[in-house]
Amino acid sequence: MAPSPAHSIPGTMLCLADYQREAAQRVDPAIWAWLEGASGSGMARQREQASFARHAILPRVLAPVAHGSTRLRLLGQDLAHPVLLGPVGYHQLLHPQGELATAAGALETVMCLSTMSSVAVEQVATRAQGPLWFQLYWQARREDTLTLVRRAEAAGARALVLTLDTLAQPASHHAIRSGFALPPHISAVHLRDIPPAPTIAGHWYHPALAGLAAAAPVLEDLHWLRSQTDLPLIAKGVCHTGDAQAIMQAGFAGLVISTHGGRALDEAPAPLALLPAMRAALGGDAVILIDGSIRSGGDVFKALALGADAVLLGRPQLHALAVAGSLGVAHMLKLLREELELTMALAGCTSLADITPACLIPA
Amino acid sequence: MAPSPAHSIPGTMLCLADYQREAAQRVDPAIWAWLEGASGSGMARQREQASFARHAILPRVLAPVAHGSTRLRLLGQDLAHPVLLGPVGYHQLLHPQGELATAAGALETVMCLSTMSSVAVEQVATRAQGPLWFQLYWQARREDTLTLVRRAEAAGARALVLTLDTLAQPASHHAIRSGFALPPHISAVHLRDIPPAPTIAGHWYHPALAGLAAAAPVLEDLHWLRSQTDLPLIAKGVCHTGDAQAIMQAGFAGLVISTHGGRALDEAPAPLALLPAMRAALGGDAVILIDGSIRSGGDVFKALALGADAVLLGRPQLHALAVAGSLGVAHMLKLLREELELTMALAGCTSLADITPACLIPA
Amino acid sequence: MAPSPAHSIPGTMLCLADYQREAAQRVDPAIWAWLEGASGSGMARQREQASFARHAILPRVLAPVAHGSTRLRLLGQDLAHPVLLGPVGYHQLLHPQGELATAAGALETVMCLSTMSSVAVEQVATRAQGPLWFQLYWQARREDTLTLVRRAEAAGARALVLTLDTLAQPASHHAIRSGFALPPHISAVHLRDIPPAPTIAGHWYHPALAGLAAAAPVLEDLHWLRSQTDLPLIAKGVCHTGDAQAIMQAGFAGLVISTHGGRALDEAPAPLALLPAMRAALGGDAVILIDGSIRSGGDVFKALALGADAVLLGRPQLHALAVAGSLGVAHMLKLLREELELTMALAGCTSLADITPACLIPA
Amino acid sequence: MAPSPAHSIPGTMLCLADYQREAAQRVDPAIWAWLEGASGSGMARQREQASFARHAILPRVLAPVAHGSTRLRLLGQDLAHPVLLGPVGYHQLLHPQGELATAAGALETVMCLSTMSSVAVEQVATRAQGPLWFQLYWQARREDTLTLVRRAEAAGARALVLTLDTLAQPASHHAIRSGFALPPHISAVHLRDIPPAPTIAGHWYHPALAGLAAAAPVLEDLHWLRSQTDLPLIAKGVCHTGDAQAIMQAGFAGLVISTHGGRALDEAPAPLALLPAMRAALGGDAVILIDGSIRSGGDVFKALALGADAVLLGRPQLHALAVAGSLGVAHMLKLLREELELTMALAGCTSLADITPACLIPA
Repeated sequence: MAPSPAHSIPGTMLCLADYQREAAQRVDPAIWAWLEGASGSGMARQREQASFARHAILPRVLAPVAHGSTRLRLLGQDLAHPVLLGPVGYHQLLHPQGELATAAGALETVMCLSTMSSVAVEQVATRAQGPLWFQLYWQARREDTLTLVRRAEAAGARALVLTLDTLAQPASHHAIRSGFALPPHISAVHLRDIPPAPTIAGHWYHPALAGLAAAAPVLEDLHWLRSQTDLPLIAKGVCHTGDAQAIMQAGFAGLVISTHGGRALDEAPAPLALLPAMRAALGGDAVILIDGSIRSGGDVFKALALGADAVLLGRPQLHALAVAGSLGVAHMLKLLREELELTMALAGCTSLADITPACLIPA
Repeated sequence: MAPSPAHSIPGTMLCLADYQREAAQRVDPAIWAWLEGASGSGMARQREQASFARHAILPRVLAPVAHGSTRLRLLGQDLAHPVLLGPVGYHQLLHPQGELATAAGALETVMCLSTMSSVAVEQVATRAQGPLWFQLYWQARREDTLTLVRRAEAAGARALVLTLDTLAQPASHHAIRSGFALPPHISAVHLRDIPPAPTIAGHWYHPALAGLAAAAPVLEDLHWLRSQTDLPLIAKGVCHTGDAQAIMQAGFAGLVISTHGGRALDEAPAPLALLPAMRAALGGDAVILIDGSIRSGGDVFKALALGADAVLLGRPQLHALAVAGSLGVAHMLKLLREELELTMALAGCTSLADITPACLIPA
Repeated sequence: MAPSPAHSIPGTMLCLADYQREAAQRVDPAIWAWLEGASGSGMARQREQASFARHAILPRVLAPVAHGSTRLRLLGQDLAHPVLLGPVGYHQLLHPQGELATAAGALETVMCLSTMSSVAVEQVATRAQGPLWFQLYWQARREDTLTLVRRAEAAGARALVLTLDTLAQPASHHAIRSGFALPPHISAVHLRDIPPAPTIAGHWYHPALAGLAAAAPVLEDLHWLRSQTDLPLIAKGVCHTGDAQAIMQAGFAGLVISTHGGRALDEAPAPLALLPAMRAALGGDAVILIDGSIRSGGDVFKALALGADAVLLGRPQLHALAVAGSLGVAHMLKLLREELELTMALAGCTSLADITPACLIPA
Repeated sequence: MAPSPAHSIPGTMLCLADYQREAAQRVDPAIWAWLEGASGSGMARQREQASFARHAILPRVLAPVAHGSTRLRLLGQDLAHPVLLGPVGYHQLLHPQGELATAAGALETVMCLSTMSSVAVEQVATRAQGPLWFQLYWQARREDTLTLVRRAEAAGARALVLTLDTLAQPASHHAIRSGFALPPHISAVHLRDIPPAPTIAGHWYHPALAGLAAAAPVLEDLHWLRSQTDLPLIAKGVCHTGDAQAIMQAGFAGLVISTHGGRALDEAPAPLALLPAMRAALGGDAVILIDGSIRSGGDVFKALALGADAVLLGRPQLHALAVAGSLGVAHMLKLLREELELTMALAGCTSLADITPACLIPA
């Protein structure tokens, strides 16, 4: 059962780690296992977490930083700061109102709604405080994919984020052991009327891979998708520069370097470590976002310094949602934004453009 | 006493680490100490375990991987996957039926039976589900070595694996402290009629080295062995490229880079770290296998990426045997095979040939 | 409440870590949290502590070291050793007499009094055992800054240390959680008659950054300060060589490489790691001091070897003050000085000038 | 009080770590603190221990190693193996018979008796099982130093080991806290009739350094010593190649790279790390020994591979002495020798000359 969020911010919430600790106390253990779980042994997530500690930020003094700002323009939209809410499914597991509550707390930023949302995009759009993006899981039949695109467009989504890294998702042993199962009143509402993929037998032995042929998009599908909508397209879960270049040539505006928060390939590298090569490969115009274990303003700063335009938060939005609902989400974003501003000021940066590799030093 | 294996797979067996944990509960502590023990301080084994974590696997997207497969051709035999059961002695310590039970669970793969088997090769051959290989310990008298070779040939073995790294085996302190001793009803049946080596005094002070002259093979012995049988020959326990080249020139088909699971030289390096130089030294045609702390599909993938043709499992087969007999062995192999397939699919590989050094990135 | 210091040195005080441990027992937990706390997650402080362990000191033998000494000439003053007491606020939190007690124990060294002192500079000057320096926090109005300068000059201060790295200070979560608040009878007496800064709204969202415009000095302010006093000027909290060069061109005598003991930018690098580049950038004549987790004579030696002229202690003076008042401060300095002498003798150095990069070796 | 040693080897003594553990149970805590203590924070000793783990040993196969041996010729003496007993003071703290018991167990190797022995060299010589060396601490007056030399010569010592690294010895905090004091019946018998050094005041503040002028040898003293005796001379505690070259030019036969088991400079590097440069600087003819945390045959092998001719054991001889007297010392040496032989055989080495840098690989 979803926890009852507090009606005000507990005074002990000073940073994102506090929200995580507090949420761990409030959330049902099986749901917590689902939320915190990663695939396999959890190596990918450990690497994510370790990657930020490898960089220190060089302090600057005497710069006139009083009039700085974290503003940016992203996919034609003006945003107050570069911390976006990334797509995560089933918010109702953490809060009775689910994605409606999250959207209400997503002040001055993008909320990217998941295909696996427990509330429909049309409803969430009514509560959105900033631009709404829609995350798209490829469906076995193009017409079903198109149905999702049309719903997102109609609801006012400003961009589509096509997730590519979950062709098959390794199980989280932690979640399985906890006995996690989706409760009957919660479901992926967008997929309610989409029939399951017809299986086309492959050669693999693993059952999860047997029906892949029908459900996994290939490059040609991206070209097709590009032809079907005017919305900006972002590919999520891209780590290889060659893949990225092909995606950009298919007309995408950019990508999210992501290992799905450690939920995809167990042995994946840390996204942060892939950033410099990705920026070098794609050039300055491509939109490059990143997610994975970003938990402080310093983490955001490092991601931007190494080449990201903005970052996506995953689990932290659900921690905050579980602790204090919309208020928690808004406060959690406020903490991160203030940390980023303080970091920028102490590093002598007055705009996101000032945040460059020269701001970092090996730790 | 050997534990009573379960008659079905416990639902908590999700990965090889689960089998190890469960086996630790079921197996007699002295037998467990023997099985898990390594030589000396255990440094070699610690290095093995740490070596895999140094590499991450680069995720790929958009590759059409539906029709992939883990098939390979090895020593003229078609195998469904590259995970083989390596030679380990005395399976009856873990299961009343010993190697018979293991063979019955070794679905679609090679079982390499040890000279130190507690069940004779002729019997094991009747239960083999795939190609049977025979591991050969060099005997002090060539005629005794030949007796073993002829029995293996007659039983239908498809390859001989000559172990070279146990010229003298340092004691496992852990096993000694546990008071481990082979129970009277279990023995190395192949050696029952072979007289102990006549001691030819050497100069060493260490008793274990005094009789070496008679029992340790030298290069000339390998040439002789090559002349005695038509079976493909594999040398096991080779770490040095110069040694490897001499072995190949003696007509061997390949080798296993191995430190005997940490049971030989305590201070040995991790086999994985030796792979790239070994492949470079021997070229593409030599069969290069590896063993040592391979516990996941990701580990198998990394070994193949760095130059191995296939891998051997040691202790995990006994963990699985102790937990659920033949069924356990089969299920353990299935887990590993599925993990490998999932890893391949997420890394954009549809065949083992696609798994190259470019698939890895330093972690 | 401030602890009651012992009237003699406990026999268990053998090194600075002992003083820290003992102080932790004696000091009120909230005050301890304030003293030991660092900004944010505490990463900057962890890096400080780890940086010293990266270097070992090469022992020398046969050098005639009997007549060595730790003497130095710094800013025109002769000092017995290169360990100075850096500025820390509110000593009355640790001792009823506060900075008066510290000054009485600061034998044969510089005490640098903080703007945030709980005792006025005029009083402290009457107890100073060596040269008194005054640490200056920039005030929103130049006339207020000048009032502080004039008081320091009149009290006999021999140098001014202008702190630049606290443009905005991230909160110490540890201190906030402990409920620390300054007791009513303790205050920053030098600021009693200085009105709060008038806020000039900036663009930042973070409240701590809103009024920055009025309070943070820029380069022009340093030139102005240089024109207002004949005292030597030192800038504190400088990490970037470009900043340092601009400061030296403004007529400063030198700087302190510091991250404010981990209280400024959470993600800052270790000062020790910045030393060699700073010395290379500024040349041999600039005064370069350093602070941050210096806890032994070996740490002092390493800082000098890497380019520092002298070091500043922060928290250790308050640990000693809490344990045994003036006597504790004097003893703590004696321990560090003896450790430095012993290190120098064993490294074959008879003067500070002998301590060069060649004395170190990677650890 | 010295512990009562067992009259036979406990069956659990399988390696040197076992002797250490067992001794810790038997020895008086204050004596244990003295024995195990290192100077200052103990960093030098930690580095010693970590240095061996950085190297792995490459296994070899097929080499005809049956007739190998660990024999060596050192300073004109034939030794069965390269593991020597280094000088440690006051063996009576660990055993009622002290150095007499140690000497009786030092089978087939050198025992180097300390100036600080609790039993006189003349008595120890009567029990020596192999060559006796004498370790010399420089005395304030040359005639006193000469008295020690003459006693050693007369007692049949075959070499003199002049310790240079304890010009001043930092206190072991661990020993001080334990309240360790030499019991009245134990003393440094060789120094009984030597008057304390007359103090010649130096400039240092540290009391331990005040009287250095009289007691610390300089290069000229080494030349003088060389002129006074025909015994081979070894300098102990040399880390710097320049120091070493000067010592060799003074006619010394070689040196021991040592940081006095972590009892001298707290921040010293690991001796093992200094070996390759030392061998390169001195060439192949110089005798280079090493001590410091050698606890296994693998450690001995690594030291030899990196350039040492032989190694010295410190604390392990006292662990063994405390556990089982002479028998323990002999058994401890036997364990180490067997481990070394096994390591050599598995690394394909039949003589110490075969142990070269090519036998190692980074771990």
